[in-house]
Amino acid sequence: MIFWEKETKRVYLDWAAATPLLPEAKAAMEPFLKGDFGNPSAIHKEGQVARLAVEGARDFVARALQVRPEFVTFTGGGTEGNNLAIKGTIEALHQAAGRSYSDMEVITTKIEHSSVSLATEHLRSIGVQVRYVGVDEEGFVKLSDLRELLSEKTVLFSVAYANNEIGVVQPVHQIKKLLRQTEERFNTQIFFHVDAAQAPLWLSCQFETVGADLLVLDAAKCCGPKGVGVLVRSRRPVLAPILFGGGQEQGIRSGTENVAGVIGVAIAIEWAQTNWRARAELARAVRDEATRLLLETIPGAVLNGPHGEDRLANNINISIPGINTEYAAVWLDARGFAVSTKSACAGAGGGESAVVKAISNDAARAHSTLRFTIGPDTKPSDLRKLTEALKIYVTKMRDLTQ
Amino acid sequence: MIFWEKETKRVYLDWAAATPLLPEAKAAMEPFLKGDFGNPSAIHKEGQVARLAVEGARDFVARALQVRPEFVTFTGGGTEGNNLAIKGTIEALHQAAGRSYSDMEVITTKIEHSSVSLATEHLRSIGVQVRYVGVDEEGFVKLSDLRELLSEKTVLFSVAYANNEIGVVQPVHQIKKLLRQTEERFNTQIFFHVDAAQAPLWLSCQFETVGADLLVLDAAKCCGPKGVGVLVRSRRPVLAPILFGGGQEQGIRSGTENVAGVIGVAIAIEWAQTNWRARAELARAVRDEATRLLLETIPGAVLNGPHGEDRLANNINISIPGINTEYAAVWLDARGFAVSTKSACAGAGGGESAVVKAISNDAARAHSTLRFTIGPDTKPSDLRKLTEALKIYVTKMRDLTQ
Repeated sequence: MIFWEKETKRVYLDWAAATPLLPEAKAAMEPFLKGDFGNPSAIHKEGQVARLAVEGARDFVARALQVRPEFVTFTGGGTEGNNLAIKGTIEALHQAAGRSYSDMEVITTKIEHSSVSLATEHLRSIGVQVRYVGVDEEGFVKLSDLRELLSEKTVLFSVAYANNEIGVVQPVHQIKKLLRQTEERFNTQIFFHVDAAQAPLWLSCQFETVGADLLVLDAAKCCGPKGVGVLVRSRRPVLAPILFGGGQEQGIRSGTENVAGVIGVAIAIEWAQTNWRARAELARAVRDEATRLLLETIPGAVLNGPHGEDRLANNINISIPGINTEYAAVWLDARGFAVSTKSACAGAGGGESAVVKAISNDAARAHSTLRFTIGPDTKPSDLRKLTEALKIYVTKMRDLTQ
Repeated sequence: MIFWEKETKRVYLDWAAATPLLPEAKAAMEPFLKGDFGNPSAIHKEGQVARLAVEGARDFVARALQVRPEFVTFTGGGTEGNNLAIKGTIEALHQAAGRSYSDMEVITTKIEHSSVSLATEHLRSIGVQVRYVGVDEEGFVKLSDLRELLSEKTVLFSVAYANNEIGVVQPVHQIKKLLRQTEERFNTQIFFHVDAAQAPLWLSCQFETVGADLLVLDAAKCCGPKGVGVLVRSRRPVLAPILFGGGQEQGIRSGTENVAGVIGVAIAIEWAQTNWRARAELARAVRDEATRLLLETIPGAVLNGPHGEDRLANNINISIPGINTEYAAVWLDARGFAVSTKSACAGAGGGESAVVKAISNDAARAHSTLRFTIGPDTKPSDLRKLTEALKIYVTKMRDLTQ
């Protein structure tokens, strides 16, 4: 299942950062990059063709995620979706319900993607209380800590379904249950925001299955086009917009709809979710063999995040303390392997992984991460070759420094 | 110059709402919708190919608009660009310079696009003083009014280069001069934000020519793809982000870059600006003939906005008091003409044109607008046929109601 043009010698192991565009998604986008260029808000035929396409895409996403179409909002991507979910919820409570910022508490973790961690940091800057629930050494939210942190002031809990660096899949059901119990206890509402950007190819994103009030997807991470995403919400939260204008998307997200983009994300999400289980099972087998081999072969290598079922099926993340893994990534790149050290969004600037620091409190480990995120096409032999190459690099570096 | 597939019988007269995608832009986007799917922030080859594309696109835009590439920020479209320019400027002054909201004044007009008017309305809701400079009966900013309104507290003046409904082209040079004089008088800084979404096909958008501190373009309005835009800034304003995350675009606009989209907008802007003058001259001739014919033929029709050079070359906007022009637009659509009554962003909900209300203070006129925005391919015969059809409609309606 190799569906994009690639150099046969390259081994692409950075599916967490970017994915190829599904040919079916591209084909469906095509008419809207050609003759069907109308503005969906226009009343004439050209506009209505575009409107039908956008609403058809919304229905498609709604069916794939098992929600009503009116709860599906198209966004400009995962970062915008997370910002809108977090900021939009708080602003709506502030503006409509008159709640002061300092009277609201948001709980999150120290291992979130920057679009969540910096959006909550922004809330802190305007006076909202932001608290961090502890995660254990594998990255799981400590439910007992969460129970203690939750209070009458808590209005939002935000966590990634699957962590983008170490792949830990959070116990969203147990979290939801705990949030609901707390709501009953205090007679409050606590909205559950789940950044599911890494999930669609490997986990069920059916809305009820996840149990979120606000679920954020990013087309670019599940074989859709870049620059578009989806925010699905339950009946409960009201969202204030973060972009003001023409009132598109029920006033939640103004701006002329990216018609081709929303078609693309709809096709991608439907495809990703249709056979996520079989895809995940295959990837997990490949991943588990490769993880075992890496840990056996690379002296000093340790796994970051959990083993087994509660880890995103396509994610391997190891540390090799003492090794400069930024250089390792560049060295591997020159030998045909596309890998990363941490989140692409954290930039090429080096530095430690905040995620691995948070779970391990070990600077050497946080400075020596390597992430391999495989795709449906990754072969066991690709990962055996990777292991061989990495072994050569690590041995060389150790020889040089001893 | 018909470069998109269309039904030959359709006459598309809504270029202000949406434009076809330039084939050259589509072709340049193609590789990034296929094999070159890397994340520009990744350090490996796939990432660097995408990075080079994004920075190449930035250079391309910079050359077309005659600015340095570091002052070009890619956005998710015109609405986001306007929001970022307005909110970002005020937030930066508030956060970095410690200026209180109530100590800042923003001046704009009553005829701006909703992405400007509602962004400034949002500023008002957080305590910023928002003042409206008067416009004359053709829509031009009253410079004497502006001179009186400008104060020591003024930090931002926002106006569209060319109005999206009535096409009035503002005297940006004179405005800039006045703002600079005021800065000297008070020893302050007044940032000049220009929404140029409607401009690239018909006016020079060279940065120095416009004279703005913040210039906003939208790909979808100049034959680029939907969902992407450009914000160009001078050395003077600092912008606080409105989306928090990975720190892309110098931290001004987080989110994985829409690589294909930025390539598309770059090609579109370069093409639009390369021969805007010749394109505008041809369109103006077609437009002027059609305007004359419409005003002669349609009983009671009046032109909204100015005649001549200071009107966007492709814009005709008339009112036919007493006629329900929403119905007229639908009737014309059924006969092959795609027209609008006002801004598409204002939605299909009917109601008056706030722009025409502001210039005329005439409710009947504001409720009976029709906008025809032509393209480089619009033929004089198309507009003659339109005039004939509209005459039939108006005559019928007048007969029915008399």
